[in-house]
Amino acid sequence: MIGIGVIGYGYWGPNLVRNFHEVSDAKIVAVADLRDSRLEKLRKQYPAVKALKDPLELLRDPAVDAVVVATPVSTHFELAVEALRAGKHVLVEKPMTATSEQARRLIDEAEKRRRVLMVDHTFIYTPAVRKVRQLVAEKKLGDVLYYDSVRVNLGLFQHDVSVIWDLAVHDLSIMEYIVPARPVSVSATAISHVPRQPENTAYVTVFFDAPVIGHVHVNWLAPVKIRRTLIGGSEKMVVYDDLEPSEKIKVYDKGITVTSNGESVYKLLIGYRAGDMWAPQLEMTEALRFEAEHFVGCVRDNKRPDTDGQAGLSVVRLAEAATQSAAERGRPVEL
Amino acid sequence: MIGIGVIGYGYWGPNLVRNFHEVSDAKIVAVADLRDSRLEKLRKQYPAVKALKDPLELLRDPAVDAVVVATPVSTHFELAVEALRAGKHVLVEKPMTATSEQARRLIDEAEKRRRVLMVDHTFIYTPAVRKVRQLVAEKKLGDVLYYDSVRVNLGLFQHDVSVIWDLAVHDLSIMEYIVPARPVSVSATAISHVPRQPENTAYVTVFFDAPVIGHVHVNWLAPVKIRRTLIGGSEKMVVYDDLEPSEKIKVYDKGITVTSNGESVYKLLIGYRAGDMWAPQLEMTEALRFEAEHFVGCVRDNKRPDTDGQAGLSVVRLAEAATQSAAERGRPVEL
Amino acid sequence: MIGIGVIGYGYWGPNLVRNFHEVSDAKIVAVADLRDSRLEKLRKQYPAVKALKDPLELLRDPAVDAVVVATPVSTHFELAVEALRAGKHVLVEKPMTATSEQARRLIDEAEKRRRVLMVDHTFIYTPAVRKVRQLVAEKKLGDVLYYDSVRVNLGLFQHDVSVIWDLAVHDLSIMEYIVPARPVSVSATAISHVPRQPENTAYVTVFFDAPVIGHVHVNWLAPVKIRRTLIGGSEKMVVYDDLEPSEKIKVYDKGITVTSNGESVYKLLIGYRAGDMWAPQLEMTEALRFEAEHFVGCVRDNKRPDTDGQAGLSVVRLAEAATQSAAERGRPVEL
Amino acid sequence: MIGIGVIGYGYWGPNLVRNFHEVSDAKIVAVADLRDSRLEKLRKQYPAVKALKDPLELLRDPAVDAVVVATPVSTHFELAVEALRAGKHVLVEKPMTATSEQARRLIDEAEKRRRVLMVDHTFIYTPAVRKVRQLVAEKKLGDVLYYDSVRVNLGLFQHDVSVIWDLAVHDLSIMEYIVPARPVSVSATAISHVPRQPENTAYVTVFFDAPVIGHVHVNWLAPVKIRRTLIGGSEKMVVYDDLEPSEKIKVYDKGITVTSNGESVYKLLIGYRAGDMWAPQLEMTEALRFEAEHFVGCVRDNKRPDTDGQAGLSVVRLAEAATQSAAERGRPVEL
Repeated sequence: MIGIGVIGYGYWGPNLVRNFHEVSDAKIVAVADLRDSRLEKLRKQYPAVKALKDPLELLRDPAVDAVVVATPVSTHFELAVEALRAGKHVLVEKPMTATSEQARRLIDEAEKRRRVLMVDHTFIYTPAVRKVRQLVAEKKLGDVLYYDSVRVNLGLFQHDVSVIWDLAVHDLSIMEYIVPARPVSVSATAISHVPRQPENTAYVTVFFDAPVIGHVHVNWLAPVKIRRTLIGGSEKMVVYDDLEPSEKIKVYDKGITVTSNGESVYKLLIGYRAGDMWAPQLEMTEALRFEAEHFVGCVRDNKRPDTDGQAGLSVVRLAEAATQSAAERGRPVEL
Repeated sequence: MIGIGVIGYGYWGPNLVRNFHEVSDAKIVAVADLRDSRLEKLRKQYPAVKALKDPLELLRDPAVDAVVVATPVSTHFELAVEALRAGKHVLVEKPMTATSEQARRLIDEAEKRRRVLMVDHTFIYTPAVRKVRQLVAEKKLGDVLYYDSVRVNLGLFQHDVSVIWDLAVHDLSIMEYIVPARPVSVSATAISHVPRQPENTAYVTVFFDAPVIGHVHVNWLAPVKIRRTLIGGSEKMVVYDDLEPSEKIKVYDKGITVTSNGESVYKLLIGYRAGDMWAPQLEMTEALRFEAEHFVGCVRDNKRPDTDGQAGLSVVRLAEAATQSAAERGRPVEL
Repeated sequence: MIGIGVIGYGYWGPNLVRNFHEVSDAKIVAVADLRDSRLEKLRKQYPAVKALKDPLELLRDPAVDAVVVATPVSTHFELAVEALRAGKHVLVEKPMTATSEQARRLIDEAEKRRRVLMVDHTFIYTPAVRKVRQLVAEKKLGDVLYYDSVRVNLGLFQHDVSVIWDLAVHDLSIMEYIVPARPVSVSATAISHVPRQPENTAYVTVFFDAPVIGHVHVNWLAPVKIRRTLIGGSEKMVVYDDLEPSEKIKVYDKGITVTSNGESVYKLLIGYRAGDMWAPQLEMTEALRFEAEHFVGCVRDNKRPDTDGQAGLSVVRLAEAATQSAAERGRPVEL
Repeated sequence: MIGIGVIGYGYWGPNLVRNFHEVSDAKIVAVADLRDSRLEKLRKQYPAVKALKDPLELLRDPAVDAVVVATPVSTHFELAVEALRAGKHVLVEKPMTATSEQARRLIDEAEKRRRVLMVDHTFIYTPAVRKVRQLVAEKKLGDVLYYDSVRVNLGLFQHDVSVIWDLAVHDLSIMEYIVPARPVSVSATAISHVPRQPENTAYVTVFFDAPVIGHVHVNWLAPVKIRRTLIGGSEKMVVYDDLEPSEKIKVYDKGITVTSNGESVYKLLIGYRAGDMWAPQLEMTEALRFEAEHFVGCVRDNKRPDTDGQAGLSVVRLAEAATQSAAERGRPVEL
């Protein structure tokens, strides 16, 4: 039985507690939050769980084997590093840290102490994203040509982080998981429509060490909610629409055919293929539940999680580069 | 009665001839095309129209008052400038020219000779785009905050121009028409997936001399057809979906409210507004028919067209800057 | 404070308990269910609520002022009549009873004992349905011409009742609430695709004492989920799509214009009108929460609920007539 | 070369002429219409075709081998029978005749004279409908359980025929083509909202000599256009949406599983299956062009068309029965 401590019981914390509660090999031991009202809420729903104000008390608790950090981004590093130093395994909310420097230090600390460090890139644990990854791995799409994602809605403006660090990290983590190439540079543009507030609209292009391009459009100020990703392959193409109740993934047997007409390499004939569309049935598992079991399993069996510290670092580096590029109106930033 | 000559009877030419044919004040006098098969097709359908091989013969014809240039982009400038020198009024396909330098010279020539110079930015003559412009002009949307357009499908790969010069010019022309600010710089990224062929996927950000951002995503290699534009305003927001058979324009009474809590300018409270949605009934006029009448009217009454040489130049400059920026992976290019 | 007892803790019971729990003037006193596992589940979540096996024990409890009957249809009448005889106010699941005779006796019993009798026609308490009713009441649609509803999906086959008594009662209750006319006869057709099982597909037409027609299509065996209702009016028409996350109600300013050409009454000229579409913003209240408060308010203030015994009876009569008509392949049944 | 004469050059006639024009083995010889304006239009576009006022003159023309009757329904029988008597092959607009008695006499006449009699059930020649028929024939859907079709829009009110004879005949012809069973009775309900005008809204249920049910909903007075058919099978189910630009046919691997639990035949366990969805690529052929070639091929090779006189009769009988049933508010009418 793995004892779990959760730091932060705000927006996401209750979801984490509910899901870890249902994992058979785990037990929620303690939850820490600075706000009394949150602790009161916790006590009502989970009377058996220790409700603590001081996260350090939670870290000192020997019944806690693993810690989930679900606090604002600016505190991730300090809490996670303290947890690792206290010998705990750690699952950190996305984005893993506020800087890539912090991410690297966290990875070092975890390796030094042989502890599991995992980042909560929830979408990696959805059946839809795993299905696309599988299609790519099985070469069903051919070569991946582009990854294009739109994530917009009239959303919760964040005061401490921009829309890149809030929404785009979801897409960047999925892109990293799916695209079988290494990002090499980033160009991003963004705008804030509210004075002295972080950017609420952003466009991020990622270049890779292969002929594939990635693009993410995120916006907190859109009249409609869109969650649509196009993944182009040389053989097949995917539309992943997360708002579809069923058929989230549609695989199109479409593409182009390129033939040389023999005379000259400069005279390519480009034809079009259009075939069937296919929407694979997806499992109905809740991503967070699956993720909680994955974390507990990694802790128990001393395995590396699908979203390990390196995955967390990669996304933080991309977000960092995008932020820097956006501040210079799109100037490309090498990774 | 205005005599019309059309140069180029390929993909778009027959549409132009059909529409000018129905304009009461105009008469198609001659059509020129290099290919015999095209001229044969013309003769069958319009036996009364002169079918010429040599465009210069068309330009010499005194019965021709105005010339429509519907040839590949690389030939626009030369044909248009010859037409102006021959004293003809000119309507040029989009993009108006291959370079902004050519566009400027065309404008000068037209002014010197007091002839109408118009560019065929067809979308400007659609009821949907004109309705959005009207909403902006009447301040119904408040301040325009962003213009975001997606135009993707499994499309005809062009060999001579990139997707920026083929598809994005549509969006850039609409953006220029709708956004009440002056573009100041461009950052673009793009990729070609076929060796030695122009870019087939591109992302273009336009910065303005006002707190508004423009973005265009164009792609010839998408599994689904999308023609969707989001226009954010401080009061209302618009979704313009050109594939909707009716309700192309939806106006959302949504937005944010920003209030200072008095203590500090750094502590802004951001709230959300969500109200009714409204889809105004649009006229059913065909854009090209309306545009043909507009051109004939401008020639007859010596008026400046809605899409004059300056509009053509602006779009060419944006496409030029986007191409340059894309070649440098997003480096911003000042206009 | 009104004491609430709930009989039946199966599919719907927990939703009822959760919602009544949040009503400030009410208190869940006891829940009865025959199955130990259900009671166990209740005890865990609501340790303060009495978990009873015997519904009669619940009815004898003086702390219980009002009883919610959430058991299979065949038991509604007996439990409800016992509750009324015990002096309790009663809220019964839909359909109110298995026969119209039972419905009438229930109404009599409630009147005799001056107790509130309410039926849980949940959709009547949704913002969407109330908005349509309001539009009709304010004559915004003109005369109501038809009510057409489709409610299909791959659904839970019921063993004890047909799809008419399971799904169609939702639509019949909404139709009764919205259409300002009195049903006079019913023609229905239906089929069962599983031997010895109730009908899983049905079509019900309702005729009124006015020139309006109602139709309901229900199906447990459809590959896709559809919840769409068209309401035609002489001035405007409504599409109510319950699966739309927002914009559930769309009001179309469309219709026909009928003019006599003067010569003869037989020569009518029929024209078409097409105007704007408008999607009113709807409140976000949960229907069941609103309904629970309505019931508690009616009990407290001795008022007649929006879905009173008569509403329950009307729907049962329609379902009864539809069942009879379907058994005779559509023969019309007078009400 | 088959000589074609067309009687009626109103709404549908020009489409027929255009498509027969492109059939290599056929030649449009003559067109007859009572209205001078129509003939004028014809002469302009097809100067080589004889433009006649008198249909009898067309029937006497020895260059005419086959006649297409595209006039109002009330005249179909007389013109078609005259054409057959004149030794011509005949293609008649849908519905084939105004009564089943007329349809039978037409079939007799055609058989007696060994001439091709074909009815223009256009949808039978669409790639979508043929694909569904093929899926059924190959037993891919298992047993067909139901056919449910909705065809509604703000449509052209007809003065001479009801919505059953105008729109429902499309669906009835498709249903007959797809459902592998014989219709045995019909129950229909309908309403006219304009005094002294034919019904503009109708619901038609068709019963078969097998456990399958058919239903058609047609409406000229709907605010939105819907063309959607659900075809349920015991193995798979189809959604056919004619308004989808691509993916008109979606095949769902969904259904129920029925198992007996051994104890009793009354205790059936019903489970649900949900699998992949698949949208087969459809050919892009225009239905009318394909149909024209089919007619010409049948005339040339003396073959029976897919939509022969019997197909025409079946649909007329269903429409006749539906009309009679609707007049009696749903009373079932045996076929």
